[in-house]
Amino acid sequence: MKDRICEFECNIDDMTAEELAFAAERLMEEGAKDVTLRSIQMKKGRPATLLTVMCSNDEAEKERFVHLIFKYTTTIGIRELISERYILDRREEILDTPYGKVRCKSVSGYGVKRCKLEYEDLARIAEERGINIAEARELVLGSQK
Amino acid sequence: MKDRICEFECNIDDMTAEELAFAAERLMEEGAKDVTLRSIQMKKGRPATLLTVMCSNDEAEKERFVHLIFKYTTTIGIRELISERYILDRREEILDTPYGKVRCKSVSGYGVKRCKLEYEDLARIAEERGINIAEARELVLGSQK
Amino acid sequence: MKDRICEFECNIDDMTAEELAFAAERLMEEGAKDVTLRSIQMKKGRPATLLTVMCSNDEAEKERFVHLIFKYTTTIGIRELISERYILDRREEILDTPYGKVRCKSVSGYGVKRCKLEYEDLARIAEERGINIAEARELVLGSQK
Amino acid sequence: MKDRICEFECNIDDMTAEELAFAAERLMEEGAKDVTLRSIQMKKGRPATLLTVMCSNDEAEKERFVHLIFKYTTTIGIRELISERYILDRREEILDTPYGKVRCKSVSGYGVKRCKLEYEDLARIAEERGINIAEARELVLGSQK
Amino acid sequence: MKDRICEFECNIDDMTAEELAFAAERLMEEGAKDVTLRSIQMKKGRPATLLTVMCSNDEAEKERFVHLIFKYTTTIGIRELISERYILDRREEILDTPYGKVRCKSVSGYGVKRCKLEYEDLARIAEERGINIAEARELVLGSQK
Amino acid sequence: MKDRICEFECNIDDMTAEELAFAAERLMEEGAKDVTLRSIQMKKGRPATLLTVMCSNDEAEKERFVHLIFKYTTTIGIRELISERYILDRREEILDTPYGKVRCKSVSGYGVKRCKLEYEDLARIAEERGINIAEARELVLGSQK
Repeated sequence: MKDRICEFECNIDDMTAEELAFAAERLMEEGAKDVTLRSIQMKKGRPATLLTVMCSNDEAEKERFVHLIFKYTTTIGIRELISERYILDRREEILDTPYGKVRCKSVSGYGVKRCKLEYEDLARIAEERGINIAEARELVLGSQK
Repeated sequence: MKDRICEFECNIDDMTAEELAFAAERLMEEGAKDVTLRSIQMKKGRPATLLTVMCSNDEAEKERFVHLIFKYTTTIGIRELISERYILDRREEILDTPYGKVRCKSVSGYGVKRCKLEYEDLARIAEERGINIAEARELVLGSQK
Repeated sequence: MKDRICEFECNIDDMTAEELAFAAERLMEEGAKDVTLRSIQMKKGRPATLLTVMCSNDEAEKERFVHLIFKYTTTIGIRELISERYILDRREEILDTPYGKVRCKSVSGYGVKRCKLEYEDLARIAEERGINIAEARELVLGSQK
Repeated sequence: MKDRICEFECNIDDMTAEELAFAAERLMEEGAKDVTLRSIQMKKGRPATLLTVMCSNDEAEKERFVHLIFKYTTTIGIRELISERYILDRREEILDTPYGKVRCKSVSGYGVKRCKLEYEDLARIAEERGINIAEARELVLGSQK
Repeated sequence: MKDRICEFECNIDDMTAEELAFAAERLMEEGAKDVTLRSIQMKKGRPATLLTVMCSNDEAEKERFVHLIFKYTTTIGIRELISERYILDRREEILDTPYGKVRCKSVSGYGVKRCKLEYEDLARIAEERGINIAEARELVLGSQK
Repeated sequence: MKDRICEFECNIDDMTAEELAFAAERLMEEGAKDVTLRSIQMKKGRPATLLTVMCSNDEAEKERFVHLIFKYTTTIGIRELISERYILDRREEILDTPYGKVRCKSVSGYGVKRCKLEYEDLARIAEERGINIAEARELVLGSQK
């Protein structure tokens, strides 16, 4: 399956890590499909950050995110890249386990078929039992056999 | 003021980002003074992560963290560095502002004296008003004049 | 306001940090709108650098930068990406302060309006007085009330 | 000389460094023009990896790599960027040296003309003699005068 | 179990990625316990690399590595840190599987007990069958039940 | 030759890239032996920076740098590591070349003997002639034969 996605980018060297983290969180809450931060080096060797924000390729949505990025960051220029995106079909199932409900994202297409236990549910189980994520995953998978 | 601090380090190339994030959170909750992750490159050019955990230089506490790091990560070796630490005196004040209580960490020593508004309180104000952190800071400081 | 911008990219693993820094400086002096360096990992796990150079989307200008990048780096291939760019209106004002002239970049558009003191002027004041940038900014802003 | 190239990108936070290294190697062996890994920071501050895979802009080839990326990674979405690429003309020569045959990649175009000794051959000489790469390069160049 | 380990560090800004990769490989072959490369930023904002080499805390061995690091890199100064190291007991077992012998590193101590399949063996199986590492791991573990 | 060196470290998440660059420059001008910045990830997944400052292991000098680091950064705690350092003997020579004087740092010890042309002098020649650093180095070395 293919769709189109819009990726906004800007280079920032005058916000602190705290301010960047806050901006990234707000943009996720506003519905961005993804927000990433990357360390880069700008002119005069300054250690800066590249912020990328992905949203759907819809004019109103893009307009909305341009406003939000200008609002939550100090940038004065935002680059826009449109790219095609190949995506797998996704379906969410819910597993009934001795450790509570565990969501399972099942994906398929392009010759692959696999499923992935939801991180938040594994984290809850791991916290409750004082174990790590890998051990929680094993517990859940073991209970399904 | 000086004290001593213990810094544990380990190189990890067989945990996922999700698992590392979970481990870092658990270690913070267990009382680590700081936990950091750094991108490094290990043998055979493998992109790995250096985990550092700081705790007080106390035998029981160190023993406890060695157990916790082995529990929450896949490492099979933990390095221990003891370092002296120069710290400023810290005092927490609470500012009464039109935007609610705002904590302010006041530090002094070694010729400096400054104070810093608590990030969590600024984040709360910024969220309530749909503004960014810098604007929230300005609001709070403006109200104190 | 929208315009188009050209972004050139190349991956480099056979230049030293000194040579990369020199190349980045020359490209800025030749009029690039921005030059960034990012740490990446290339084939066989080699720690390399991604150089990006932004210039206006004008044929002669692009041709000129392709020549310059081939001249100052060792790359044998340069990728070209054209992206739309959303930019704020910018106006430079000059503030008369007890600490000398301070340039102030005032930007507006897309629902925001803010201004930013020029880094070089703050750095000059901070150097003259042996203070940090944040303190210099406060001095300047305090003098304008 | 100009051609077009296809760049696939995906953000990954649930593979270990070992698994990523394996995937990158397989994709190179399948004929990718380049594969890079970059450290990024994803939502919730998770330290993740951006995988990029370059291949020729040919429909069958692109289709093949989409399948391979889905097969060797855990991603559920792959972005596709097409970019123009400026490339130098390349010609491989073989130098006869007292240290054995050494390949030399000679490139020209866009006003530059230079050649580069093949890394693998320098590495072989350096290993045989217990010297470093820079010394091996000097030996070879010295023998050609 | 505790031992002592020696960690050598140097900052390098005048070697290429290729030269650094070669140096790291040679140092591993000479018996270093670990060699890592980290991106850092040196004076004048130059993107450089921190090389660390670990070896046992033995005078002859340390002397040997100081010579090797000076030989294979361009550094003119090497810092030496001695740290305590907590290590788990390790034992290697060999599993007989339908996919051939698979080594399994079993570790215990400090309240944990776990084992890890050897990466090289999983990589061999994954390559032979055109599957990824996670799938190879599952195959091997499944065959042991 | 061996000496001892002091390395100060602090983690910073509330300064901008501009402010960090200014602090690093001031510390170099105050006589630090080296200042580096490294991207790290702090608690709550915040992208932060590790600042390291090296100075001689002399009480007055250390005291001076502790004051300077507290002055130019926002940190409230500075870790101090003392390490042994192996250094090569250094001697500066001046080469008379058709391109002007070029300094050459000659180092020896621990079985190595090599010399390195000063970057600033190569950069001046490269700038004057519109060539890159590698070409400037070749010109200078060629003129000495």
